[in-house]
Amino acid sequence: MIIDGKKMAEEIKESLKGEIVKSGKKLKLGIVQVGENSVSQKFIERKVKFSEEIGVKTKIYNLPAEITTNKLRKKMAEICKLVDGVIIQLPLPQHINTQYILSSIPQKKDVDVLSAKAIGDFVVGKQNVLPPVVQAIRKIFVKNNIEIVGKNVVIIGAGLLVGKPAMIWFINQGATVFVLRRLTQNIFKFTKEADIIITGVGNPGLIKPEMVKEGVIIIDAGTAMEKEKLLGDVDPSVASRASIFTPVPGGIGPLTVAMVFKNLLALNKK
Amino acid sequence: MIIDGKKMAEEIKESLKGEIVKSGKKLKLGIVQVGENSVSQKFIERKVKFSEEIGVKTKIYNLPAEITTNKLRKKMAEICKLVDGVIIQLPLPQHINTQYILSSIPQKKDVDVLSAKAIGDFVVGKQNVLPPVVQAIRKIFVKNNIEIVGKNVVIIGAGLLVGKPAMIWFINQGATVFVLRRLTQNIFKFTKEADIIITGVGNPGLIKPEMVKEGVIIIDAGTAMEKEKLLGDVDPSVASRASIFTPVPGGIGPLTVAMVFKNLLALNKK
Repeated sequence: MIIDGKKMAEEIKESLKGEIVKSGKKLKLGIVQVGENSVSQKFIERKVKFSEEIGVKTKIYNLPAEITTNKLRKKMAEICKLVDGVIIQLPLPQHINTQYILSSIPQKKDVDVLSAKAIGDFVVGKQNVLPPVVQAIRKIFVKNNIEIVGKNVVIIGAGLLVGKPAMIWFINQGATVFVLRRLTQNIFKFTKEADIIITGVGNPGLIKPEMVKEGVIIIDAGTAMEKEKLLGDVDPSVASRASIFTPVPGGIGPLTVAMVFKNLLALNKK
Repeated sequence: MIIDGKKMAEEIKESLKGEIVKSGKKLKLGIVQVGENSVSQKFIERKVKFSEEIGVKTKIYNLPAEITTNKLRKKMAEICKLVDGVIIQLPLPQHINTQYILSSIPQKKDVDVLSAKAIGDFVVGKQNVLPPVVQAIRKIFVKNNIEIVGKNVVIIGAGLLVGKPAMIWFINQGATVFVLRRLTQNIFKFTKEADIIITGVGNPGLIKPEMVKEGVIIIDAGTAMEKEKLLGDVDPSVASRASIFTPVPGGIGPLTVAMVFKNLLALNKK
């Protein structure tokens, strides 16, 4: 089955919209972008669109690429006071100490769950909200009655936004977890054993049909941009072997955006 | 090579002793034990012995097995004020919310790195001190010039004290990481591919020679007690196939105890 992430995101959008109208709350999301990046630009536009449609205000803070870590941290402190939730659009420029900046977000405004404190709570299972990509995966799994305990989960990539949070969550759910990365050799040996594959490395065509077993569940969180086209890590022909398959575009991406706003509301409920 | 963890621990002991004499500091370590457990008792005795030998005072708080989570948390707040570092001897009784208790330890006194805050800093790589077992592993790896980047690391078990911290650390070091657990089927398929095996499940004889490749590095952090004898997870005959092998007893255990005190000193340096 091919997951229609766009449709699922629309359903969440409607429900969040209703919740916001009912609560009468006026929420504001700050989006911080450092330097220019056409891919980031696209993702920001999607968030802004979603935001407007549910009645949440957004404010985009465009900061110069050459800003120092210290100046950015100071700027973050100001921004965090003005909004109800903050997103730092990743990646930040190479010279910035990314984690130092991410950890400056107060936990109640950390919709992406990227500050050290929020991550600590997440690891020990006491989080207020789950990382957006994890929430999106969870939604698909719950909807389709997918059991996790004892399953072999292959995660490709160990990045901040997909690999690491997925690893922590699946471990906490009782799965066997394999984290493969760029230097891993013969990845087919492990993908072949996977009941579930989560991939988020930005390497189009990395996973081919002969590398997976029949009935595998595939969540493709890869986002490579080629000639203005968004591509995942999984060859689309793998879909026919999978029992659950999230395409790119229109799979886990829109659902993850929706979860950012679900988190914004959840964190501002009390 | 069989690692002499006892000897390595002795060296650390001498160095810590010297450091304490030099600093003139009077440090006190609190050890909290809830209920009675003969294995825990043994581990506590080892820590007390090490402590006395380096000139650190210990105070053991024996609390009744039927204490409630809330009462224990209150008690923890009192204890934490009286000491420079705290150890909660695990496991706690089933009815206790273990993580809630662990997270009550202030980060500067959290020598075991088990509070949510300390874990969050550890995940993002900004920790003050490393979890003791990770420090012990690191020590062995540094001493023997073992490269980690790109290596296949198989971790058996995902517990608080060994599996989870090892997983986080090896991921942060750039390894490919496989976390196997009780329900994982055919574990030999994965142990066979391992350059490094870390095991901490308390299942004596789990790993046999035919399950590993020649030259594997094995850290055995298993601690099962059988007829008053401490046993690891790895069959001792595996040693001859391994390039590095930590036996039980006398391997990673004493080294990990030493690292608890290294952490105590490091956290009380400033």
